[in-house]
Amino acid sequence: MINSPMNDQQALFVRMTLDAWTERVNATGALLDKLSDDELVQAVAPGRNRGIYLMGHLIVVHDMMLPLLRFQEAMHPELKLAFLEEADNAASTMPSVQQLRKQWKSVHGTLQGHMQQLPVSEWFTRHASISAEDFAKEPHRNRLNLVLNRTGHLSYHRGQLALLPNR
Amino acid sequence: MINSPMNDQQALFVRMTLDAWTERVNATGALLDKLSDDELVQAVAPGRNRGIYLMGHLIVVHDMMLPLLRFQEAMHPELKLAFLEEADNAASTMPSVQQLRKQWKSVHGTLQGHMQQLPVSEWFTRHASISAEDFAKEPHRNRLNLVLNRTGHLSYHRGQLALLPNR
Repeated sequence: MINSPMNDQQALFVRMTLDAWTERVNATGALLDKLSDDELVQAVAPGRNRGIYLMGHLIVVHDMMLPLLRFQEAMHPELKLAFLEEADNAASTMPSVQQLRKQWKSVHGTLQGHMQQLPVSEWFTRHASISAEDFAKEPHRNRLNLVLNRTGHLSYHRGQLALLPNR
Repeated sequence: MINSPMNDQQALFVRMTLDAWTERVNATGALLDKLSDDELVQAVAPGRNRGIYLMGHLIVVHDMMLPLLRFQEAMHPELKLAFLEEADNAASTMPSVQQLRKQWKSVHGTLQGHMQQLPVSEWFTRHASISAEDFAKEPHRNRLNLVLNRTGHLSYHRGQLALLPNR
């Protein structure tokens, strides 16, 4: 590929976006590793979501990035009901924290593998939830923008998980 | 300016980044407007930061973006002690919530004015805390990247503010 100024600019922006994503995923993973299983079943504040719910919610939302970024099918569609469609509640059927810890690693490892391999110019093509027709009018709704927005969503919930353990 | 493909690409990155920033600032502003002064002096979770501290902290960090982005001097350097250098504590001298509400609006309005006027190519120049020499080696440490990172920081604390009122 010719190393034109345009490719340089694209590569720079992809790097900025993926660096931010990776840094936040790693920081959240480190936070979850530090929290015990018992701490993760506490609510982050009185009457609010439990750590296990937020952990499962992030796994589901990031797992859904796999098809949205047109990488592959979601790995754990069975988690959508408890962690996305329903609010946190004691009656939900949830996997154990130990099981979620494994799924956290496999989903993020798989995403990272795809992300690192996607050619720079491909990041500026449409993601799966916008039609080719709409994308022609709104070219900012590309795959990289999806990562940008999901990074914000992750930061939002990381701020809440950082309140654990609830003293 | 010639409307070359490179300029188009740059304009797209700038739009993606500034759209994300503006959307999060507006959402946080709407959240703060919805919370009463009494609710904002509550802690977001037992033993954690109070709403007033997080509000002041975001004002200070965003105010400091004015010089970091090489726009102008900070507007409220007097807030740094209570909201950045010190942890939240009852002994801190803090402005009233009403005063902070005004400062929130003036800082974000001023930032937005500068951001909207900065030419696209200027976003890819260095921010004020990196030397020209280091920037030559690390061109991703540009002004736009600073906005990208501050957007993540804002989302983190917005997730915490969203836990108010503490029931």
